[in-house]
Amino acid sequence: MTATKINLLNDYNYVAHPSVLEALQAYQDDRFVGYALDPVSDDARATILELVGLPQAEVHFVTGGTQANLITISAALRPHEAVIAASSGHIVVHETGAIEATGHKVLTHDSADGKVKPEAVQALVLAHNNDHMVKPRLVYLSQTTELGTVYTLAELQALRAVCDELDLLLFADGARLGCALTADKCDHNLAQMAELLDAFYIGGTKNGLLYGEALVLCNPILQKDFRYQIKQRSGLLGKGFILGIQFQALFKDDLYFKLARQGNERAAELDTGLKALGYSFEVPTESNQVFPILNNKAISTLAEKIEFNLITPLENDQSSIRFVTTWQTTPEEIQATLSLMERLSPRA
Amino acid sequence: MTATKINLLNDYNYVAHPSVLEALQAYQDDRFVGYALDPVSDDARATILELVGLPQAEVHFVTGGTQANLITISAALRPHEAVIAASSGHIVVHETGAIEATGHKVLTHDSADGKVKPEAVQALVLAHNNDHMVKPRLVYLSQTTELGTVYTLAELQALRAVCDELDLLLFADGARLGCALTADKCDHNLAQMAELLDAFYIGGTKNGLLYGEALVLCNPILQKDFRYQIKQRSGLLGKGFILGIQFQALFKDDLYFKLARQGNERAAELDTGLKALGYSFEVPTESNQVFPILNNKAISTLAEKIEFNLITPLENDQSSIRFVTTWQTTPEEIQATLSLMERLSPRA
Amino acid sequence: MTATKINLLNDYNYVAHPSVLEALQAYQDDRFVGYALDPVSDDARATILELVGLPQAEVHFVTGGTQANLITISAALRPHEAVIAASSGHIVVHETGAIEATGHKVLTHDSADGKVKPEAVQALVLAHNNDHMVKPRLVYLSQTTELGTVYTLAELQALRAVCDELDLLLFADGARLGCALTADKCDHNLAQMAELLDAFYIGGTKNGLLYGEALVLCNPILQKDFRYQIKQRSGLLGKGFILGIQFQALFKDDLYFKLARQGNERAAELDTGLKALGYSFEVPTESNQVFPILNNKAISTLAEKIEFNLITPLENDQSSIRFVTTWQTTPEEIQATLSLMERLSPRA
Amino acid sequence: MTATKINLLNDYNYVAHPSVLEALQAYQDDRFVGYALDPVSDDARATILELVGLPQAEVHFVTGGTQANLITISAALRPHEAVIAASSGHIVVHETGAIEATGHKVLTHDSADGKVKPEAVQALVLAHNNDHMVKPRLVYLSQTTELGTVYTLAELQALRAVCDELDLLLFADGARLGCALTADKCDHNLAQMAELLDAFYIGGTKNGLLYGEALVLCNPILQKDFRYQIKQRSGLLGKGFILGIQFQALFKDDLYFKLARQGNERAAELDTGLKALGYSFEVPTESNQVFPILNNKAISTLAEKIEFNLITPLENDQSSIRFVTTWQTTPEEIQATLSLMERLSPRA
Repeated sequence: MTATKINLLNDYNYVAHPSVLEALQAYQDDRFVGYALDPVSDDARATILELVGLPQAEVHFVTGGTQANLITISAALRPHEAVIAASSGHIVVHETGAIEATGHKVLTHDSADGKVKPEAVQALVLAHNNDHMVKPRLVYLSQTTELGTVYTLAELQALRAVCDELDLLLFADGARLGCALTADKCDHNLAQMAELLDAFYIGGTKNGLLYGEALVLCNPILQKDFRYQIKQRSGLLGKGFILGIQFQALFKDDLYFKLARQGNERAAELDTGLKALGYSFEVPTESNQVFPILNNKAISTLAEKIEFNLITPLENDQSSIRFVTTWQTTPEEIQATLSLMERLSPRA
Repeated sequence: MTATKINLLNDYNYVAHPSVLEALQAYQDDRFVGYALDPVSDDARATILELVGLPQAEVHFVTGGTQANLITISAALRPHEAVIAASSGHIVVHETGAIEATGHKVLTHDSADGKVKPEAVQALVLAHNNDHMVKPRLVYLSQTTELGTVYTLAELQALRAVCDELDLLLFADGARLGCALTADKCDHNLAQMAELLDAFYIGGTKNGLLYGEALVLCNPILQKDFRYQIKQRSGLLGKGFILGIQFQALFKDDLYFKLARQGNERAAELDTGLKALGYSFEVPTESNQVFPILNNKAISTLAEKIEFNLITPLENDQSSIRFVTTWQTTPEEIQATLSLMERLSPRA
Repeated sequence: MTATKINLLNDYNYVAHPSVLEALQAYQDDRFVGYALDPVSDDARATILELVGLPQAEVHFVTGGTQANLITISAALRPHEAVIAASSGHIVVHETGAIEATGHKVLTHDSADGKVKPEAVQALVLAHNNDHMVKPRLVYLSQTTELGTVYTLAELQALRAVCDELDLLLFADGARLGCALTADKCDHNLAQMAELLDAFYIGGTKNGLLYGEALVLCNPILQKDFRYQIKQRSGLLGKGFILGIQFQALFKDDLYFKLARQGNERAAELDTGLKALGYSFEVPTESNQVFPILNNKAISTLAEKIEFNLITPLENDQSSIRFVTTWQTTPEEIQATLSLMERLSPRA
Repeated sequence: MTATKINLLNDYNYVAHPSVLEALQAYQDDRFVGYALDPVSDDARATILELVGLPQAEVHFVTGGTQANLITISAALRPHEAVIAASSGHIVVHETGAIEATGHKVLTHDSADGKVKPEAVQALVLAHNNDHMVKPRLVYLSQTTELGTVYTLAELQALRAVCDELDLLLFADGARLGCALTADKCDHNLAQMAELLDAFYIGGTKNGLLYGEALVLCNPILQKDFRYQIKQRSGLLGKGFILGIQFQALFKDDLYFKLARQGNERAAELDTGLKALGYSFEVPTESNQVFPILNNKAISTLAEKIEFNLITPLENDQSSIRFVTTWQTTPEEIQATLSLMERLSPRA
């Protein structure tokens, strides 16, 4: 479609990993019961549960990230309870008020690196201390964050501690969880992370699937009647087994992590190359998103050859732009991108 | 999975029509912009619009029927406005209160054949005549109905007339619209139907797709900011182009109607065969659902060989059961079913 | 305003009992903290709690019946949970979808005398048995019912038993609770009733106050953070002490019960007189509402002299009408009404 | 109750103005139709409309400010539409998420004086420019603001202009509207203000009534079916005439403005006296709220003699506190307050 340009626009710009289409093909002669109650979905859930390492956890498949967020949050909260998030959080900025549409306020704090800070959580809870205000009950974070930064184990432990202290639930949006767990900087695995969270989801849409996220409910208090919530919010597809088939394929032979790692590797190559060319960045490159700073004229020139977006105006006629890499991005595309940017001065 | 049994359970028990998987395969090397703003989705929408024959209409893709229903209804209504539906309507019985979860009451009337009756609409509007009651604003019907019956053109015209008279919107759930429009009984085409409706959707999940419904907003007053509604209710998938690709394939060479007609033909064969065997039916067979009446012991015997559900207890130790046929159902499966049922007395 | 007619329109057609205005006058020189946290409100709550006889109960004041209903129900339910009510229930018919506006479906069953029947509760729970349907969680009844009928202790015990069996909460709308507890037919007191309910409210608006209902939360699981719910739904008035002052006056010297009993006595006189005149009734007179049947011409004649409403068409050119009596209704007004109706044939 | 202390806690700490209780007393022998459809309510609405000077406007009575806010906002917005407010706005901080509970996000901007700024409105609309974000549709301001500051005519005109330009509605919370319109600084009257707003309410609770606010819908597009919204959100009281009677009394002989002016005069005396004593203020005193800055030890001492609240910590062991004056506050109480504060050093 956009073949003549290098596509670094986002991580959901392709159909699916070949294994996913092959898996669907392989089940063409089968008949399934609906609503993800079939054996293939059971198998996919069991595989994920094993990786998560929490026998008491539950896995549910939903169609997208906004859906995972709104269902989990609305299922967890009573009417007066609120969410705490970074002001750059996906639920704050990019979901058309989906959380508020289920009746709940999102309380925010600014965070330069996109991470929720324990001291900000504490301050927001302290400031909401009587029945004329909403009552914070759930902390929403994204791993990776919207800015591609990655929480360390210590950071997650600190959030867990503040949540325990203040009786808060901790929920992670994992639309890009694969890239987080395979980031060089990441010092923990899926199971270590799961132990610290009440719920999170494993993003499939941005890592090889046609569509689909696997929601993991670690804390049993979130599990009761959860399928009712999925159905009510239109996430319980008749052909739920399409999600089961896809996740079964995605978690076979570590494919999920391999794909994510490839995206990170391309981003690292891009980051290294751009640094060598003298470019600076809005935030450090920690996963599959790279935010170089260019002057605005260079951005226009670049846009003729590369698909990208999220242009953030900075001072001195400069802006940051966002490059996103995936398992589909080739080393050649990275080289071509670097060549193009070599010709543009990093500080015009 | 359940290969040893004949599967007449529902019309969403298989992966997808081969053309759909082939189409996805064919686009594997392409890159797309997200959120259904790509050229393939544009093309699919244009094809549908042409069939619909209303230049002012808008087409939006969503993931499932409950989603199509709740987004359309919540977008159309102000807080105090209500929906009118048959008491067997999908939104009434099988969506876990999804409409109420968006804040709206559903007013119902009993209807033996599952169709909304103009006089019942009138009576409900008359009975809700002051500001202590909800105000009916939208009539929800299903074509085919939940019972497989099919509205005639005259019936739709009569509903349109009462809606015009009472300032009501008319919305059709088309989860099985293909089977309605290709039913022997059906005396109108898509365009003739579209002229009478304010909105409807063309079901893909139950007619060949992996998942997906095409929502058609005929009435411009429903169109304003509609993508905001889809996003807020979690229906705007990042990989919206997967829906575009599928619908493009489904509406090529009339495939949509061919598939639906095949389902109807199998149902007609089953109906004819069962009548010849002396069976009677809970409702007449008009599309791809067949509701024969059996004694309860025969039902248990049959369940060992055939997958079916929706067993409705009747008098005299009898029940009706539901058989659903699709383009996947073979004439051989119908014959095998009839053979099995020949051995069971229709009235034991 | 309408001095020339006898007013049997409803039980909220007058300003307030003199004691209520006197109490407000008596506190004119005081200063209060807001939001019903003042000592007078404390005293009123303590008095009510003593009558209720449940030390673990909580009392909250709200402004009206719809508010009491919607706050209690929305506070008690998770998103997928539903209410069971008689189809004549106030929340079903006369609250403009207030319950649905908080996201919850109301499941109904027809009931000739307006009472919720245990077997109907059981049937509705049985029929809602999977995650495609709402999950019944709370039974809503009115004491007296909308038709003025009064639950006996045995009937309440039977509802309690079915609620215990099916894990349902039992909530009573007590807009006319005074008239129920002082009805001749009533075989229990406030404390005996409270033992069987999870929550109920004591109506003040229809029994002497300017406005206000006292909500009693018997079951501690309903109490957590309840003031947040009241505030969020706009029921936590700055001048909450106005409610405290009124309820303190209303529960002094048994005034609440005296007023209610007077209303019932007038209704009984009317009932006896009308029976003597040969009139029949749509439902038996059990509290302060009387539903005589008249021919339609007689109703028109009567309407020139008496204010009433709720005319329900019956067969043979007859209708039932509703007379409501209160502590304000005089024996002379009852006699005058009977005189007027003597001149009209009960069966023209 | 708290007779020994001077009460400067808030403007809803007393029962009601004597005229209000007298008016209720005067109607004790009357009978009314319910739901504010009575002639007294008609008369009160007509009086208010005349003052407002907009023949096309509608007046509705509701019980409190949170109710006026949530009903107006939820009635005006479609699901994806959002409100813009100052971050100190009452709906943002002090209504337990009541707006979000009706499904809508509130977008905020910081404002030192509590006023919404046209350029902030513009920036928020610019930043919310696609269907992944909520769509701003209504600007919420308070006159006076939460900090007691008063919008000038020019400021309101500038907001109107930006709203017209950006297709936004402009709504004013008038819980303290009387004090705004009678402030020395105020350069416009009720009619001039009403011309610039789509809706606003005239606060009664904080200016003489037992309870009640008069909501004025200036823009006809907000008026359709508005009573349905009031009923659904539990604001349509059976005894609506109690509100009518109170507002009739409040707007007789300019009482509303006289009471408000008295509150302002006491605040001005306090402000002048405190300035003379060397005190400085968190914000300038413009209406009936005064925010002097004291050292924290002085605040503790003062709290033994005066009721006040809203203590905001500042630097150097100092805080601001809030004094609120009303028509009930006497010049003697102001003098006594000044005497107490003379003994405390303004900068200890």
